[in-house]
Amino acid sequence: MTQKSALIVGAGKGISASLARLLAREGFRVALAARNTDKLADLVAETGAQAYAVDAAEPEAVARLFEQVDTDLGVPELVVFNASARARGPVQDLDPAQVLESLRVSAYAGFLVAQAAAMRMRVLGRGSILLTGATASVKGLAGSTPFAMGKFALRGMAQSLARELAPQNIHVAHFVIDGGVASSWSKPGEDGPADKWLDPDAIAREYLHIHTQHRSAWTWEVELRPWVEKF
Amino acid sequence: MTQKSALIVGAGKGISASLARLLAREGFRVALAARNTDKLADLVAETGAQAYAVDAAEPEAVARLFEQVDTDLGVPELVVFNASARARGPVQDLDPAQVLESLRVSAYAGFLVAQAAAMRMRVLGRGSILLTGATASVKGLAGSTPFAMGKFALRGMAQSLARELAPQNIHVAHFVIDGGVASSWSKPGEDGPADKWLDPDAIAREYLHIHTQHRSAWTWEVELRPWVEKF
Amino acid sequence: MTQKSALIVGAGKGISASLARLLAREGFRVALAARNTDKLADLVAETGAQAYAVDAAEPEAVARLFEQVDTDLGVPELVVFNASARARGPVQDLDPAQVLESLRVSAYAGFLVAQAAAMRMRVLGRGSILLTGATASVKGLAGSTPFAMGKFALRGMAQSLARELAPQNIHVAHFVIDGGVASSWSKPGEDGPADKWLDPDAIAREYLHIHTQHRSAWTWEVELRPWVEKF
Amino acid sequence: MTQKSALIVGAGKGISASLARLLAREGFRVALAARNTDKLADLVAETGAQAYAVDAAEPEAVARLFEQVDTDLGVPELVVFNASARARGPVQDLDPAQVLESLRVSAYAGFLVAQAAAMRMRVLGRGSILLTGATASVKGLAGSTPFAMGKFALRGMAQSLARELAPQNIHVAHFVIDGGVASSWSKPGEDGPADKWLDPDAIAREYLHIHTQHRSAWTWEVELRPWVEKF
Repeated sequence: MTQKSALIVGAGKGISASLARLLAREGFRVALAARNTDKLADLVAETGAQAYAVDAAEPEAVARLFEQVDTDLGVPELVVFNASARARGPVQDLDPAQVLESLRVSAYAGFLVAQAAAMRMRVLGRGSILLTGATASVKGLAGSTPFAMGKFALRGMAQSLARELAPQNIHVAHFVIDGGVASSWSKPGEDGPADKWLDPDAIAREYLHIHTQHRSAWTWEVELRPWVEKF
Repeated sequence: MTQKSALIVGAGKGISASLARLLAREGFRVALAARNTDKLADLVAETGAQAYAVDAAEPEAVARLFEQVDTDLGVPELVVFNASARARGPVQDLDPAQVLESLRVSAYAGFLVAQAAAMRMRVLGRGSILLTGATASVKGLAGSTPFAMGKFALRGMAQSLARELAPQNIHVAHFVIDGGVASSWSKPGEDGPADKWLDPDAIAREYLHIHTQHRSAWTWEVELRPWVEKF
Repeated sequence: MTQKSALIVGAGKGISASLARLLAREGFRVALAARNTDKLADLVAETGAQAYAVDAAEPEAVARLFEQVDTDLGVPELVVFNASARARGPVQDLDPAQVLESLRVSAYAGFLVAQAAAMRMRVLGRGSILLTGATASVKGLAGSTPFAMGKFALRGMAQSLARELAPQNIHVAHFVIDGGVASSWSKPGEDGPADKWLDPDAIAREYLHIHTQHRSAWTWEVELRPWVEKF
Repeated sequence: MTQKSALIVGAGKGISASLARLLAREGFRVALAARNTDKLADLVAETGAQAYAVDAAEPEAVARLFEQVDTDLGVPELVVFNASARARGPVQDLDPAQVLESLRVSAYAGFLVAQAAAMRMRVLGRGSILLTGATASVKGLAGSTPFAMGKFALRGMAQSLARELAPQNIHVAHFVIDGGVASSWSKPGEDGPADKWLDPDAIAREYLHIHTQHRSAWTWEVELRPWVEKF
């Protein structure tokens, strides 16, 4: 009768596309938000999802996004934040604007989305907020300072909100995607097995699984890595 | 046709009983091993599992156990180590024998079981080794030195074996059960919701889920905690 | 002959004041930077330090600060970043501007300072960049989301820069001040020993110690906590 | 007047020898304990230390050791545990006896020494117990299961005892020696700077520094790594 709805912010290829397909198959009404919705046309056609153009680092834009989704699809019980900005280079070559951009897109936007989601889920009495992290969320690598800063900040938010919102029946979980994702990394002619990179469909199933965990046994952080990679 | 089999070492009430029931429902042939099998009678009657008496800290006893399970149920593709010994008290009151016992039962026995499992799974070409940890696996608490020592040691083993065996398609995962489990902790008349403790059935579902993860997206450590507990 | 110089950004009371006194006693020429230098008058009078007004979250302001310090005191071989902004409250009550401010002051400003310091130390061939963290740097607490975000981000930067700059003989270290600092926390008439809070003079000695570590045995992260506090 | 005394268990070359020399220079009366004291002859001659033969994994032997040290040198205010046993190999090739030996020598012996030390320091009203760890204390590596198990267990003990004994003015600290130590690793003709390995004299200074920390700012875990190594 009342169909479940989900919102994925930072939608594109890879994890978010796999998740959109899985959620649609599972009967969710799916909202996809991205700065540029042109690239979402195929996915929208395939899944029946609704696409929304948004700069998730703008408070008003995020507020409007959630209001529209409420109206169009109903309050989402599952909200995924999947956006990030990265910049590489030795510290002396970095433009400070890249650092600020990583903090804004990878962390501040995540806060805006999580805050809007939490407010609705407090009224709903339940919900899941899932946040996409990376190796850089737990280990700052040389030459990758801006990305580490943004991803660490998002993880700090995840921990604070998980502690704060769990007793309100809102499940906040942070995913450490600890390896390359197949869609973006694999190249034709490469050595090794086909599943040496993280399969985005497999990742999507883990996101959905976390959403369905019994609240007496919740996981706050999920690490996912492919079987053949060296760590 | 060929039925899957699973072995749970350190079987009793709680997590292991829930897991035995779940695996039996899912079509596994289940072997339960414990020092004392008397306490397993009801569970055996309910699930059709096979019970084996074993001191898992004795190499010969573990070797015999695995040989019997191979013969009776077939090589297990899922092996769970769930045993531990704990002792409490300030350091000056501890009997060194308690420390040695915790290291033997919580960690050395875990090695014997994991080693026997790994040898078979290398031939089988696949399998999961799941290890039960606790808050004490990641945080040594005052007054609980022996338990922390045994549980930390088991976690060290889990990390080494996960790195070593993953490329052989063997999934080693360590569970941090970060809170009290309902069957052993809850008391009648307590305040709070019924699911304020970890539900062993919910934990069992997480164990099975990890066994079914796609190998391109494996989790090596799973933290589980109830929604209402403070951390 | 050539006197060593040091720069403390985010100078005020507490750790930075103790460190300024210690460095002055050890023969350093000390530069103190803060948004408002009025509050530094006594410390300047006491230590002979030079005070600079700066908004450390402004790239041009940070660039000017370092140029002035170079001219006035010589290139600093020790640079300490000690600024942070925090805001408290449940997620639904937080103003997004507080989150952005925490990211800017606690993390982005730290990057600007570390970048300017690294550029000089690469030429100098040595130096230490010391970053002040808190419990919130490693554990996101409920009701403290903005502070956790800023402090986690600073720690991510510390790890990336430590890995990148160590081979260039630049020591980046992050301090987890895991408890209340005496000057700001203790209250007259409180129970417990006088040293139940972290003594800022003791913290300052740890900062200087890290600066003097032999480069074959460097510490990248230092946790400091008082003896009587519960953890 | 009353001379300080220190005890190093697991004394040999490397860290323990450097520490013995440093403590002797600083005016400590030094006791060195090892299974085989023959190898300590030069160090004893050089430092004036007293050597004791002991199997630190035997409760009675450890009890006798501490009684003799009490009598000969006075109750030690600084006790260092530096012993470990390691074995390498893939899991299928490991002899379970090697695992048990690593748990006994690396962890159980550490407990026996820490317990005896704690009992005396509770009476003394102060003291430091310093425990030598390795990379394997925090990261279980493939092919190194027994060493990881022993070292993780020792770290679990360190955390429990640090929490328990800090309020009694006893400082328990665990050292993660995260790299090769020069004396045992460097080889003539190697590339790279002379200080690419951890210098044991530098490590020894860090041990002594931790012993002298003000109790309002104690470090429980110290990571030490050389400047040029990759992590």
